[in-house]
Amino acid sequence: MNDAAKPDWDALLSAFNRHLKMNIVAWSDGAATVTLDIQDFMRNRFGAVHGGVLATLIDAAGGYAGNFCPHPGRRRISSTISMTTTYLAASKGGRITAKAAVRGGGKTIYVSTVEITDEDGTLLAVGEASYRRAKGSETLDGVPVE
Amino acid sequence: MNDAAKPDWDALLSAFNRHLKMNIVAWSDGAATVTLDIQDFMRNRFGAVHGGVLATLIDAAGGYAGNFCPHPGRRRISSTISMTTTYLAASKGGRITAKAAVRGGGKTIYVSTVEITDEDGTLLAVGEASYRRAKGSETLDGVPVE
Amino acid sequence: MNDAAKPDWDALLSAFNRHLKMNIVAWSDGAATVTLDIQDFMRNRFGAVHGGVLATLIDAAGGYAGNFCPHPGRRRISSTISMTTTYLAASKGGRITAKAAVRGGGKTIYVSTVEITDEDGTLLAVGEASYRRAKGSETLDGVPVE
Amino acid sequence: MNDAAKPDWDALLSAFNRHLKMNIVAWSDGAATVTLDIQDFMRNRFGAVHGGVLATLIDAAGGYAGNFCPHPGRRRISSTISMTTTYLAASKGGRITAKAAVRGGGKTIYVSTVEITDEDGTLLAVGEASYRRAKGSETLDGVPVE
Repeated sequence: MNDAAKPDWDALLSAFNRHLKMNIVAWSDGAATVTLDIQDFMRNRFGAVHGGVLATLIDAAGGYAGNFCPHPGRRRISSTISMTTTYLAASKGGRITAKAAVRGGGKTIYVSTVEITDEDGTLLAVGEASYRRAKGSETLDGVPVE
Repeated sequence: MNDAAKPDWDALLSAFNRHLKMNIVAWSDGAATVTLDIQDFMRNRFGAVHGGVLATLIDAAGGYAGNFCPHPGRRRISSTISMTTTYLAASKGGRITAKAAVRGGGKTIYVSTVEITDEDGTLLAVGEASYRRAKGSETLDGVPVE
Repeated sequence: MNDAAKPDWDALLSAFNRHLKMNIVAWSDGAATVTLDIQDFMRNRFGAVHGGVLATLIDAAGGYAGNFCPHPGRRRISSTISMTTTYLAASKGGRITAKAAVRGGGKTIYVSTVEITDEDGTLLAVGEASYRRAKGSETLDGVPVE
Repeated sequence: MNDAAKPDWDALLSAFNRHLKMNIVAWSDGAATVTLDIQDFMRNRFGAVHGGVLATLIDAAGGYAGNFCPHPGRRRISSTISMTTTYLAASKGGRITAKAAVRGGGKTIYVSTVEITDEDGTLLAVGEASYRRAKGSETLDGVPVE
């Protein structure tokens, strides 16, 4: 990356999140903002963003919110226990933004809520999700990126 | 399709479901079975099927379960109100199968539960989802495919 | 009630919400705040507030948020389609407060998110719920209280 | 209890579940059936069973399903991570029955699905819930009842 100040967060994306070309635009301990540019293959039968794409974005952003690791070459990971998505409006596309915040939890489990808006600020979906930390990912120290 | 007895269900898939190459293998009024062959781009950071892929499959299969239309050239559509996914086991891949059944509802809203298993029969995820029928999709008659 | 300025919101509570002695302390179009004083019968086996009590409070507060009716002797009602509750902390009791806001929807369906905190401001639970309006309850006009 | 063969399961109910007079009628490792006789204080504004009562029953039955302990004087407990309830039909009352089954999980977390029916067999609500075991409750051995 050209921006020397920004760590290579893209390298931390899972295969599926990278396939969708998610972009982590802000990340700190307890919060993450992820954007996604809607491509035609992401649409439903109404021509709007597919609910599964929104659910995937909620799952991802909510997970990142609890997985911030400030150390280059290290990361934290977790697996989702459960998640919910409630749909509020259809979006025809463009760039959508998921803002996620950790709302509670402890050493091994954390809970995030996520909101997705489109470029007009219209709220498309809300979600809540619980995650379980992988061994070694309990603290900001994280584990080495394999 | 070569199978003359089987209607062209693939043509009814949304862009995203077709992108993932979902395959409706059984469909009747109130039930649908959908399979998905896991490709490498669908994995999470553990190498297992991404939770968003499972959520997308639950959303899709649960929706189809309430949208069966027996008439060639016609279809029924609905939009998801809300959905949940609870994860039970990680799957390394292969073919996964979602079985969905409508559990209740009325003319305009219906509710499905969905279970996803892998080839070994291991339960990967369960979900429940509520849908709202589009105008004209209330009965088996459906609307013309555009 | 002695407070002439405040309508008799208590009269609008369902039997179960009245049994729990819920108290609507703020109510406007799209928002509601409901308090509950924890009594001993509301505890779980850890001595904390039972998760079912929190779920009930989320269901109620989220519903009220979309049911405000400014006209004395009239009301609006809805039925819950689905709801979720994610638990964040245990509370030993005292007064807990649910803040609910309508996040979207249309004429017949609306969606609320709800947060419950205890007296210390600790977040106990979050939830999201979707509701369907009863006939006549689509607008602020509402229907006569029977 | 007069039935010498049946352990005193009632003694294991939390204060709130006892207040509602829940009755565990079947219990084994991974499954629980709980009945509830609807009393007038449990109704909503439509006169049907309050959604919060159904959510409470789902939370309880799903929890019991993973908490069976065959040893008199001992028990297992867990706390709910998250739960969902989707409503399918209104019931005017009578005896309702929740059937819960553990669907997966490991040593510390388990997931249950629950279905509630009324006396006619009408499906009133479905739910899924995840639980975390308290220390000592990981195995059938459980911990002493305090």
